[in-house]
Amino acid sequence: MTGADAAAGGLFGGVFAAGPIARETGDRAWLRALLDAEAALARAHARIGLVAPEHAEAITAACDPDRFDTAALGAAAPGAGNPVVPLVAELTRMVGGEAARHIHQGATSQDIMDTAAMLVARRAGAVIAADAAAAAAALAALAEEHRATVMAGRTLLQQALPTTFGLVAATWLAGLEEAAAALEHVLEHRAAAQLGGAAGTLASLGRDGLAAVSAFAAETGLAEPGLPWHTERGRIAELAGALARVCGAVAKPAGDIALLAQTEVGEVVEAGGPGTGGSSTLPHKRNPIAAVQAAACAQRAPGLAATLLGAQAQQHQRAAGPWHAEWPALTDLLRTTGSAVAWLRTSLERLEVRSEAMRANLDAAGGFPLAERVTTDLAGELGRAQAHRFVQDACAEAVAAGRALEEVLTERLAGRRGPERIAELLDPAGYLGSARPLVDRALAAHRRRAAARARRTGHDSPRRDGRA
Amino acid sequence: MTGADAAAGGLFGGVFAAGPIARETGDRAWLRALLDAEAALARAHARIGLVAPEHAEAITAACDPDRFDTAALGAAAPGAGNPVVPLVAELTRMVGGEAARHIHQGATSQDIMDTAAMLVARRAGAVIAADAAAAAAALAALAEEHRATVMAGRTLLQQALPTTFGLVAATWLAGLEEAAAALEHVLEHRAAAQLGGAAGTLASLGRDGLAAVSAFAAETGLAEPGLPWHTERGRIAELAGALARVCGAVAKPAGDIALLAQTEVGEVVEAGGPGTGGSSTLPHKRNPIAAVQAAACAQRAPGLAATLLGAQAQQHQRAAGPWHAEWPALTDLLRTTGSAVAWLRTSLERLEVRSEAMRANLDAAGGFPLAERVTTDLAGELGRAQAHRFVQDACAEAVAAGRALEEVLTERLAGRRGPERIAELLDPAGYLGSARPLVDRALAAHRRRAAARARRTGHDSPRRDGRA
Amino acid sequence: MTGADAAAGGLFGGVFAAGPIARETGDRAWLRALLDAEAALARAHARIGLVAPEHAEAITAACDPDRFDTAALGAAAPGAGNPVVPLVAELTRMVGGEAARHIHQGATSQDIMDTAAMLVARRAGAVIAADAAAAAAALAALAEEHRATVMAGRTLLQQALPTTFGLVAATWLAGLEEAAAALEHVLEHRAAAQLGGAAGTLASLGRDGLAAVSAFAAETGLAEPGLPWHTERGRIAELAGALARVCGAVAKPAGDIALLAQTEVGEVVEAGGPGTGGSSTLPHKRNPIAAVQAAACAQRAPGLAATLLGAQAQQHQRAAGPWHAEWPALTDLLRTTGSAVAWLRTSLERLEVRSEAMRANLDAAGGFPLAERVTTDLAGELGRAQAHRFVQDACAEAVAAGRALEEVLTERLAGRRGPERIAELLDPAGYLGSARPLVDRALAAHRRRAAARARRTGHDSPRRDGRA
Amino acid sequence: MTGADAAAGGLFGGVFAAGPIARETGDRAWLRALLDAEAALARAHARIGLVAPEHAEAITAACDPDRFDTAALGAAAPGAGNPVVPLVAELTRMVGGEAARHIHQGATSQDIMDTAAMLVARRAGAVIAADAAAAAAALAALAEEHRATVMAGRTLLQQALPTTFGLVAATWLAGLEEAAAALEHVLEHRAAAQLGGAAGTLASLGRDGLAAVSAFAAETGLAEPGLPWHTERGRIAELAGALARVCGAVAKPAGDIALLAQTEVGEVVEAGGPGTGGSSTLPHKRNPIAAVQAAACAQRAPGLAATLLGAQAQQHQRAAGPWHAEWPALTDLLRTTGSAVAWLRTSLERLEVRSEAMRANLDAAGGFPLAERVTTDLAGELGRAQAHRFVQDACAEAVAAGRALEEVLTERLAGRRGPERIAELLDPAGYLGSARPLVDRALAAHRRRAAARARRTGHDSPRRDGRA
Repeated sequence: MTGADAAAGGLFGGVFAAGPIARETGDRAWLRALLDAEAALARAHARIGLVAPEHAEAITAACDPDRFDTAALGAAAPGAGNPVVPLVAELTRMVGGEAARHIHQGATSQDIMDTAAMLVARRAGAVIAADAAAAAAALAALAEEHRATVMAGRTLLQQALPTTFGLVAATWLAGLEEAAAALEHVLEHRAAAQLGGAAGTLASLGRDGLAAVSAFAAETGLAEPGLPWHTERGRIAELAGALARVCGAVAKPAGDIALLAQTEVGEVVEAGGPGTGGSSTLPHKRNPIAAVQAAACAQRAPGLAATLLGAQAQQHQRAAGPWHAEWPALTDLLRTTGSAVAWLRTSLERLEVRSEAMRANLDAAGGFPLAERVTTDLAGELGRAQAHRFVQDACAEAVAAGRALEEVLTERLAGRRGPERIAELLDPAGYLGSARPLVDRALAAHRRRAAARARRTGHDSPRRDGRA
Repeated sequence: MTGADAAAGGLFGGVFAAGPIARETGDRAWLRALLDAEAALARAHARIGLVAPEHAEAITAACDPDRFDTAALGAAAPGAGNPVVPLVAELTRMVGGEAARHIHQGATSQDIMDTAAMLVARRAGAVIAADAAAAAAALAALAEEHRATVMAGRTLLQQALPTTFGLVAATWLAGLEEAAAALEHVLEHRAAAQLGGAAGTLASLGRDGLAAVSAFAAETGLAEPGLPWHTERGRIAELAGALARVCGAVAKPAGDIALLAQTEVGEVVEAGGPGTGGSSTLPHKRNPIAAVQAAACAQRAPGLAATLLGAQAQQHQRAAGPWHAEWPALTDLLRTTGSAVAWLRTSLERLEVRSEAMRANLDAAGGFPLAERVTTDLAGELGRAQAHRFVQDACAEAVAAGRALEEVLTERLAGRRGPERIAELLDPAGYLGSARPLVDRALAAHRRRAAARARRTGHDSPRRDGRA
Repeated sequence: MTGADAAAGGLFGGVFAAGPIARETGDRAWLRALLDAEAALARAHARIGLVAPEHAEAITAACDPDRFDTAALGAAAPGAGNPVVPLVAELTRMVGGEAARHIHQGATSQDIMDTAAMLVARRAGAVIAADAAAAAAALAALAEEHRATVMAGRTLLQQALPTTFGLVAATWLAGLEEAAAALEHVLEHRAAAQLGGAAGTLASLGRDGLAAVSAFAAETGLAEPGLPWHTERGRIAELAGALARVCGAVAKPAGDIALLAQTEVGEVVEAGGPGTGGSSTLPHKRNPIAAVQAAACAQRAPGLAATLLGAQAQQHQRAAGPWHAEWPALTDLLRTTGSAVAWLRTSLERLEVRSEAMRANLDAAGGFPLAERVTTDLAGELGRAQAHRFVQDACAEAVAAGRALEEVLTERLAGRRGPERIAELLDPAGYLGSARPLVDRALAAHRRRAAARARRTGHDSPRRDGRA
Repeated sequence: MTGADAAAGGLFGGVFAAGPIARETGDRAWLRALLDAEAALARAHARIGLVAPEHAEAITAACDPDRFDTAALGAAAPGAGNPVVPLVAELTRMVGGEAARHIHQGATSQDIMDTAAMLVARRAGAVIAADAAAAAAALAALAEEHRATVMAGRTLLQQALPTTFGLVAATWLAGLEEAAAALEHVLEHRAAAQLGGAAGTLASLGRDGLAAVSAFAAETGLAEPGLPWHTERGRIAELAGALARVCGAVAKPAGDIALLAQTEVGEVVEAGGPGTGGSSTLPHKRNPIAAVQAAACAQRAPGLAATLLGAQAQQHQRAAGPWHAEWPALTDLLRTTGSAVAWLRTSLERLEVRSEAMRANLDAAGGFPLAERVTTDLAGELGRAQAHRFVQDACAEAVAAGRALEEVLTERLAGRRGPERIAELLDPAGYLGSARPLVDRALAAHRRRAAARARRTGHDSPRRDGRA
């Protein structure tokens, strides 16, 4: 298989390993990261003079994922409890000679696994960040374009009062960008190399322990940890929290898109082109299938994150179960987060906004969503509580009698407010409060972030992928 | 790949897809189940006269997993949101002619997916049950053999008072068997076929809807549902609860085995043979690696179950996300449960019990674990509270002065109890209460269950695997 | 405070401890259960001759919750790690004399806590069952009344094809009743007394251990356990699963009600009367507030259940943490489940169904929801795949050209189907499949369950509340 | 009740609402925060000229928690779906006159609830931080004192190779401080005021919306949000992640303390003084009850965090359920985190370290934990793999023959290594690698953090508690 391996593909991979995340979270990505960690260790030792450079080069050269068989390594893993033991055995066999004696020097299996996990997380994080940036760009364009597109603001699924689709998109944008930024922060500062040896003392490295850790971190491109973190799993927990938070920032707009796309609402459509969003039995449907799949991917996150948060309770110097439990949970959480973001991006790129339906739905509500404005307008004279009661009574009469609110208010406010003022009060476009400056604010923040990202991506990516 | 596909194999599959569960939860198992569902549907329609028998036979013949490519189906899935749509397209192409017109008749994609999920669950459940039965047999043998093996009972990880390893094993046994029985009950009674058509009304089957459901259930071997359950997911929730409960029944003994195998405790050893339980850096270690891996597999269950329990909130007639989220969560939960049980079985089959260490640890506690017995012996005369205080004081003195409890008690109880009585009171073998009859009770229940299982497995398995 | 104590009341109690569950899950309910357990233990010992009847009576008489101070007991709990130790001390002081010597005889704190937990669960379960039965009755009435009320069936939040509100209500009904039945089953068969003494051997009861357990179970009205279950927590896990499943059976209809009550859908209204469903700022709103609160209560369940499922991994004979963690999780899960069911009941009792809006929404969809019927009608001639394509093309044309589907089909099917047949095909009332018999089936099951419940409630409730 | 209200007290409050967190997470703390939010809103409007200063003062004066009845507010909450509606009604009644007209101006209920939630989180966070700092100080003292205390490093609960208790304590320290710092960061930067009005547009404030938000944030002391976050719940999710991560940093040392305190290990004791750690039936026990309760509190976190992470999927402008579900989950998570940290602090303050037992346990392992050192020593000559095999064989012989490893190695290494060198290799004190500099590093980081905290607490606390 090329590109994506089967662990990330398969029957459900199209939905749950969507986009570039499949490649970064599959077995091959893990294998590559494990080998990168072993190679970096040899080079680190060379840096500080423990290993001859040519041996480090020989080891690095052998650390080629194409030369290993993940299925065989996986099958051999349970004997020792992890795949590093058979990997090191195989690598040692391949390298041979003097150089082979320096493979895995000073390390315990968990050093390699944890370092690899962080490399996988960084690389997966990079594609999550890229898809999030693309989704953010789409959202920024929507916010810009629909800055003045009036629609119903809805609370508890009821029309409440007017807002703009621009503000809706801006809120989605701010959430997604904040979530992505928090994830990038964790990956930048907390994704650390692991090197502690069997009990976290770096004992077999003698006096060279700390220097080796420092050189190892530099070779991997990961952060240098203050202490070995074999059983202090805050780094994993913070990563879990940040990933689940990204999923939340996907679930929110994905759910809203599905709601806005309802047959009876019709304010957005996912224009998916032929073959997407169709139904096996219902030829007319235009399902918001990308949004639905984004929501599905995101929904897996809290349970996976809970497993990782709970796995912090690790025993002594290396744990008897919780550490192992992290591997599939972290891999799945990275993958489902990446898929969620990829699907949201797809949904947004397909999105058609029906401004006229937005306005029509609001108008169909008969002026009720503007009731608050009338209350506010009267509150100065009557006090908030009495104004509230007055408007409530008017609304009740309008509902009961099936009359327009405008008509009832005109009658009841005769003497206080003229018909023109009442019509003005009931015009949704005039009651948008700070919607416009809030959109501007979100777009300004987006431009700052996008610019910073452009700078960062230019400089940092070579260092961040774990290769020198 | 043969036997197990890659989704269940791979780098972590050795640990988390251990034993026969890999084969029953991989992509190929799903594909087979999807095809079984389509074939059963055609035969069901033939049963009630909607389809000519030869067409049903042609469709059944084409429903051969070897003729389909799961990766291609998975890649095509997202367009429609599930892999059934491309599967039906491919199947239709294969069958061709008049018969092809009857493929998937009256069904919606979810009918096939849900039915397949239940077939996968039934088949995975059968291997879980078999491994659980083997583990239970090992536990029954341990309980039998160690009925009189005295060891320390421990509360809050402190020695409390004596128990027997027989009772410990009997308690593990009862928990595992009860959990397995509850899972089998759910699979037997609640694993139902799904057939409702696009909106759960069976509309496209006209007047034949209910008859078709009944015939379809019979053809699949699954239970017949009262109503379509497209968005009423109690069946999935009950399955999730039962699986997580099995994992709990594994986590309990697995954790205890790891504790009993501690270097300082040494009451059990996992005698894993060459290549198992070793460490890459610590050649002397005999890690209880099977128990550790059992615990790791089990630890994933609560988070996965939470996802499934939360996914019950499904919208209207078919859901916009939660249904999709079930697929990987259910598959992973079945797989991790099966692996957990397989590892527990392995651990138990490797287990060496060190009766002499059990006794030595208890003796090393200096009689304190028998303190309760002295309290009870004195309670008749002094009242419970005062007896408790008396013994507490004696213990405190013994601890503070570094003296044997027996000595202190002999002094303090002079006149009330003679030295022989005190020695007798402090003999752990004489203070085991109902440990023996409790073991007998657990073994009797085991024999009843094992006999019932033998009868059931003989008769039921052909019907239960979903083939006629 | 009367009725509900503060732990179940307070600022959020109105929402999350709604209805009779507050009373059954508060501190006073726990205190009562703890005292019931101590009293039952004394009486059990009297039954088997270990304690004089008058002492058991004296102890029972003192076990009056009004004489104890939960706050003081709670404050004293952490010294020993649970509230039973101070409770027993206080009870001993109150009873005094010879009788006091027999308090808590043979028991460890966990025996009393676990037994009390099961009594609390049984009593909470009884009020959950009662509210579920009331909600089921309301649902049955809706299913009956709206057996022929045509509405849109919706998949992925899009109109798919017609169904009836009767079938929707029947599906909610079946889910709720199945969930309630499963909970009742667990409470009936798995809510067991706990009596094992400090290490689960019943050591301090000598040869009377098993008889004491049997008598104790009889006195509490709880099931008799095969073995002590201090660290085999399957009973708690099964309870957790059953409660979370009930929450799922609430979340489903609650979510649907909120969706159906949307301003743009308007198919149901929660007619809450004055003061309910209002908004502090939006006088016109009629929020489906009971359904929203039902959904909120239900949403807490998966996380709480996960804590309980994970807490099965308990160490040795009594656990070092997980057992304690069960107390608030189980109490909260019982309470939130009871509140969820109470809110659903309230929502259903307030529900106004707008049949005309149901029909209007369906009609507004321009015949598209009947497209499947046309496909089915043509499938016999064209084969399913070609019929699907034909209808898809017709739908596409209708959408693109803004024409009625009926018109497009009349043109395209000229020669094959006449206009009358096309009109007939597009009539939703004629395409309801088995909706009616499915409703009948659900109602028949409901009547059977309701009758069984009436019989059971008559006979069993005195025994089931834990008093003789 | 004084200090702590009943919601945080009660039967389980001693365990799960331990220490100062009870007071900051009870109903009274919420009530105070709600009133603080209303008062801050009035003052904010005064700041920008919307309200006369004397009215803001009158409102502020009335916002006195002693004048309100939480039970009554809670009971009235469900009508509107939250307690703010009855609170505002009551406050309006109290204030009366012209000032009353300005209460709650421009706000929706959720503005007040969310702002109050953040104030509660800030204040709870302050006591969590204080207890964490005290626990960190205790850990730093342990690390300092036991920098050279040799003990067994344990992996998978087996002795692996030597470490020091100083390094163990330093690792606990680093984890706890990093977790606390991350929580403080979230509370500082992400705990924001909420003001958006009914649909998040600030419509009823006209052109003053943004200025009002800014002034409101300043008056509350909370961060100023870029946009209203009614349904963009990243702030809550980040808080949930940070709290669960703190719980993990408690669970780790708490679990280790319980393991180290095992009867058979005896390396630490919780010297709890009279009345703590006792058992109702086992007078001799010295349970590590504070550590156990810390672990129990921490164990609740992943499930509660999962609820909050999942509740990010909020609909439109205000949610139909998930928002409500946050209230108890967030309150419980704050409370259980605070209790966990308080219990860890207590455990550490009670901790007696038995250095001699640490050494004795290591010595009892017969030199095996030094096997790695021999491997490393030989690796230069033999290569790692062969050295590993050599030592493994020697260990196997020693185990099988019941001989000392030293003896076997002396024989097998004759010619290569002399007896003195072998004795030296097997001395644990000589094989501690970088344990000492790692401790120094952790202590240096601790001193930096403690100094920064001292500076911050001096300056910031007045601003951070939400009062000017």
